[in-house]
Amino acid sequence: MEKSVFKCKVEPRNVDFTSRATVSSMCDIILYVAGRDAHNRGFGIQVLADKNFGWVLSRLCIELDYMPREYDEFTVHTWISDYNRLSSTRNFTLTDGAGREFGRAVTQWCMLDYDTRMPVDMKTLEKVHDGTIVDCPSPCERPRRLGAVKSEPILEHKVAYSDIDFNRHMNTMRYIDLIFDTMPIEVPEKLEAVRMDINFLREALYGDLLSLKGECSDTVRTYEFANEAGDALCRFAFEIR
Amino acid sequence: MEKSVFKCKVEPRNVDFTSRATVSSMCDIILYVAGRDAHNRGFGIQVLADKNFGWVLSRLCIELDYMPREYDEFTVHTWISDYNRLSSTRNFTLTDGAGREFGRAVTQWCMLDYDTRMPVDMKTLEKVHDGTIVDCPSPCERPRRLGAVKSEPILEHKVAYSDIDFNRHMNTMRYIDLIFDTMPIEVPEKLEAVRMDINFLREALYGDLLSLKGECSDTVRTYEFANEAGDALCRFAFEIR
Repeated sequence: MEKSVFKCKVEPRNVDFTSRATVSSMCDIILYVAGRDAHNRGFGIQVLADKNFGWVLSRLCIELDYMPREYDEFTVHTWISDYNRLSSTRNFTLTDGAGREFGRAVTQWCMLDYDTRMPVDMKTLEKVHDGTIVDCPSPCERPRRLGAVKSEPILEHKVAYSDIDFNRHMNTMRYIDLIFDTMPIEVPEKLEAVRMDINFLREALYGDLLSLKGECSDTVRTYEFANEAGDALCRFAFEIR
Repeated sequence: MEKSVFKCKVEPRNVDFTSRATVSSMCDIILYVAGRDAHNRGFGIQVLADKNFGWVLSRLCIELDYMPREYDEFTVHTWISDYNRLSSTRNFTLTDGAGREFGRAVTQWCMLDYDTRMPVDMKTLEKVHDGTIVDCPSPCERPRRLGAVKSEPILEHKVAYSDIDFNRHMNTMRYIDLIFDTMPIEVPEKLEAVRMDINFLREALYGDLLSLKGECSDTVRTYEFANEAGDALCRFAFEIR
């Protein structure tokens, strides 16, 4: 089994006022590639929809040594390295036109039974992974487990029409945008390299009122979205250089 | 001179929870095509940047007879039909795989001198349009002049990092998203066809506090964004079927 290869390009909609790709749009590209590859290899959403199962992203990390610029072209290699009862690990490397690696990502996916809203034991679905494993380790440290964030809320946001995807779930990129919107604009302006870790705990749906907590140390910014009941929905950590 | 032709596709990021393209993403595709064609024909932003001139969108209308679905492919034809001292008119038609027209758009662009922040008389720049005019009229009624909206504000929004483009201006698509977020979700859910008109009056910049007014009649929804000084920034009208 070989890694899959995708040619990508930083489009105008992907860049911020520095003419470089945003962190959320690089994440969008990674997730787009994941969806395309799953589809091409026949275990995409369409196939699972027949069983009323779907892939749900549980953790993600991405490392970028620099932010590519508008119209930069790059190559994404992606492969599934392993799976266990609960999750399947999909990896990514990003290389520039000269073949130099400038980024890497690891995503961990659960399978959800939409009838019961419970995770599906992946071992009962071994065929889904038949012939899909590439014997190559993850290209960086896997997504870290992130603890609770204890600050006062810094933002409230009601999940709106433009935030939701085809599942009526709050879109991952919108979470990242909302977080960056709370940072001093000098942070994305001066950002040279970044590692982002995400843990998803619960989904947010249309109309939910979210609150965002954030903590900032010398080395890492951590964030947590919670719903009105106080349940943590997802946590983010950013190491920014 | 021939019309330019672009192949487009409704990507996952373009759709809402109905799995159909959003109005804002169809507008994004139209503006993306405008930028690519201007670039390909040598009067794009890069060329004008040498003079410190830039194209600024002053009016837009788009008509869609239905909203295309995720992964639908379609073709955009675009051409400049005419220009006068103040603005240049770029037209679009959208046709499905069988060649049937399902959408059309007209955009009007001014040229701005970034040093003086004043419009440039297009007649002094005739070379920009040399050989670019296609002798074919606009495919629908041109963008309408929209009057002031007088309701109470229905939304306040501070222009944030994720709202701005490479010019630090509020992005057109974010205006449309904010408007749709104020509508009952049944409006985009049940939308069958739409005509949208936009007038841009002033730009909004990072950190500006915007307020949105909206009025709704049987046939048309009209909206106006204003800044803190009360100056109208842009107006929108939607005829939704």
